[in-house]
Amino acid sequence: MALIVQKYGGTSVGSIEKIRNIAVKLKTIKEQGHDLVVVLSAMSGETDRLIRLAQEITPTPDTRELDCLLSIGEQTTVSLMAVTLIDMGIDAVSLLGFQAKIISDDVHGKARIEDVDPARIQEELAQGRIVVVAGFQGIDPNGDITTLGRGGSDTTAVALAAALKADVCEIYTDVTGVFTTDPNVEKRARKLDRISYEEMLEMASLGAKVLEIRSVELAVNHQVVLHVRSTFSDETGTLVMKEEDIMEKRVVSGVAYRKDEARVTLTKVPDKPGIAQTIFKPISDANIVVDMIIQNTSADCLTDLTFTVPKKDFARTMAMLTPTAKEIGAQQLLGDENIAKVSIVGAGMQNHPGVAAKMFAALATAGVNILMISTSEIKISCVIDENYTELAVRALHKEFGLDKVA
Amino acid sequence: MALIVQKYGGTSVGSIEKIRNIAVKLKTIKEQGHDLVVVLSAMSGETDRLIRLAQEITPTPDTRELDCLLSIGEQTTVSLMAVTLIDMGIDAVSLLGFQAKIISDDVHGKARIEDVDPARIQEELAQGRIVVVAGFQGIDPNGDITTLGRGGSDTTAVALAAALKADVCEIYTDVTGVFTTDPNVEKRARKLDRISYEEMLEMASLGAKVLEIRSVELAVNHQVVLHVRSTFSDETGTLVMKEEDIMEKRVVSGVAYRKDEARVTLTKVPDKPGIAQTIFKPISDANIVVDMIIQNTSADCLTDLTFTVPKKDFARTMAMLTPTAKEIGAQQLLGDENIAKVSIVGAGMQNHPGVAAKMFAALATAGVNILMISTSEIKISCVIDENYTELAVRALHKEFGLDKVA
Repeated sequence: MALIVQKYGGTSVGSIEKIRNIAVKLKTIKEQGHDLVVVLSAMSGETDRLIRLAQEITPTPDTRELDCLLSIGEQTTVSLMAVTLIDMGIDAVSLLGFQAKIISDDVHGKARIEDVDPARIQEELAQGRIVVVAGFQGIDPNGDITTLGRGGSDTTAVALAAALKADVCEIYTDVTGVFTTDPNVEKRARKLDRISYEEMLEMASLGAKVLEIRSVELAVNHQVVLHVRSTFSDETGTLVMKEEDIMEKRVVSGVAYRKDEARVTLTKVPDKPGIAQTIFKPISDANIVVDMIIQNTSADCLTDLTFTVPKKDFARTMAMLTPTAKEIGAQQLLGDENIAKVSIVGAGMQNHPGVAAKMFAALATAGVNILMISTSEIKISCVIDENYTELAVRALHKEFGLDKVA
Repeated sequence: MALIVQKYGGTSVGSIEKIRNIAVKLKTIKEQGHDLVVVLSAMSGETDRLIRLAQEITPTPDTRELDCLLSIGEQTTVSLMAVTLIDMGIDAVSLLGFQAKIISDDVHGKARIEDVDPARIQEELAQGRIVVVAGFQGIDPNGDITTLGRGGSDTTAVALAAALKADVCEIYTDVTGVFTTDPNVEKRARKLDRISYEEMLEMASLGAKVLEIRSVELAVNHQVVLHVRSTFSDETGTLVMKEEDIMEKRVVSGVAYRKDEARVTLTKVPDKPGIAQTIFKPISDANIVVDMIIQNTSADCLTDLTFTVPKKDFARTMAMLTPTAKEIGAQQLLGDENIAKVSIVGAGMQNHPGVAAKMFAALATAGVNILMISTSEIKISCVIDENYTELAVRALHKEFGLDKVA
């Protein structure tokens, strides 16, 4: 008899029929004697529909009011799920963010969960009920509805699992787990049985979309074991857990990529104190997130500075930097939107020298030119020409033996 | 500078365009320096759509969960209205039932408001905001969402007006006020400038659909002056107020009718103690509401008993009474679905003898046969053949001079 928190995403609850299918699964688990807390997203497309509705009024709706509107999506699915369960003879109750006491800050549209008071949920569980909680939404200290941003339902599920000290937090999605790489790019991608929190964090930030990054951070902090698995099959998925609890450590666990960044280069920048501040302060003030920054070794007190920004902010960044480049006496301002970032991730690489060299060699053999490199303890990222993305992913996947069963 | 509570019904907020039109009206009133609390219904048809959605799962959805789902309708309109106002540069805030602290009992689907804690609304008003409150919904002592039943937004508005000690509670609807009778039946129906609470209660219970009856009861209890008026014109509507405050009292204020009842008669029932109990107990147990009951003078210890029930419960009532009729030794069980109830209402009739005689004479002159009669201090109702309804309404409207300006 375990306490299980489950989360179902938008495609899993996209229709009355799908809701009924999940209800049948829940009934089985409940009848095995487990306690069940189920977190639901809005039906797929519903959040976007509500945003469009508000945008019929204004392109920039008030964020407090938009949150009140958007929370409707999850309110619909949880009440329909509870109706379905009760109709099947299973005692169940839906709880919205304010009822489940999911306390967040008041940053509407991307609020952070600050606390969860599990008393009501525990009370309902003690009554033998399945508790169906609206994901993505919280309540701030003023008593106003907040939303947690894209993927927020994952965060809701992990926060509840932490507060309830659940045995496991199962994230049901439309794939069977976390893969060694994107199966759309490499057919031989394999599902991982286990992955460490740190690896999952890197994979998520490098473009693997299976888990929202904040939910993984929350899981690390509270040591919540995540089980990423498919709504549409009974296959075991991927466990996301402490590195120490994973017996066999792979050097490289996965290959990730993202194509949503652009590269900006300032050449022959006078290398003197304060120059980085002059360049990056206005970019940061404009809320543009800079990812990789590379500064080449200075020659003649002149340096080349290269960094990446989101593609959607590229034009704005170039426009802002045109006067700056002149002001600081840089030779040229160059930009390139046709880049991709390809990365290998693996908790084992910190104890294995030569992983980077092996990566660069594999890319060279495949004829892929490396434009930028950045590394952390458990990942190595290379920026390359966007056209070579899939080729590079497949080459690295093969090089590190990811297509073979471990 | 007044404190005004306004309520807009579903047809008034049926689209983004209509919401914008109301927002423009609110802006004008706000700029005149008044404090404004605005109660909104769901967009017309939305509540029915949500009920149908739940009924795709089961014809009898759990009422607690259905309330959670139904409350979405008003949540949508209040957030869209607040978005619109804020976009127009008017400070505004939406509040749901739980935020406006509209405390109800836990009878889901037809909850009664038990208390309103106006602190949050007063705080928002003090900040200079228009407060947009979701009608039709409350929160019960468990923290669960309730709905107040059809027309519940009227009740929300009156409860808020009472709690806030508002100067007036304006009910905006798609007609310009309360009429002497249904304008669809009698073209010469006139809008009443004033009507007493008691008259309005009788009119509402007799079929005039302009105000929900519970909202009028609440208004009497808290002496809230109601102003029923049109969303789509600036014309003054009808004030619903204390009888003492209405200078000129009409003998008859209006003619009402309803066609949704059926008549049941048991003939030659042995007239002995306990017989009424035998007949009406099972009907009451089946939640069937009996309206008029008439028992003729007993002859030879045999009596004819006639009563009316809602048409929708007629077949059920007849089926239940068939064995009962035999059991108690009644001669016949007769039923008639083709009846209507036509009524005249007027606070002045309590001081004017002869009103009933005048009514009966008018009906006789029009060739309308009276099947049943019931009276209260301020109304007289006659059950007649349904086919004569409109004829009877017009005859009475003319007889009591309602087509002439008072």
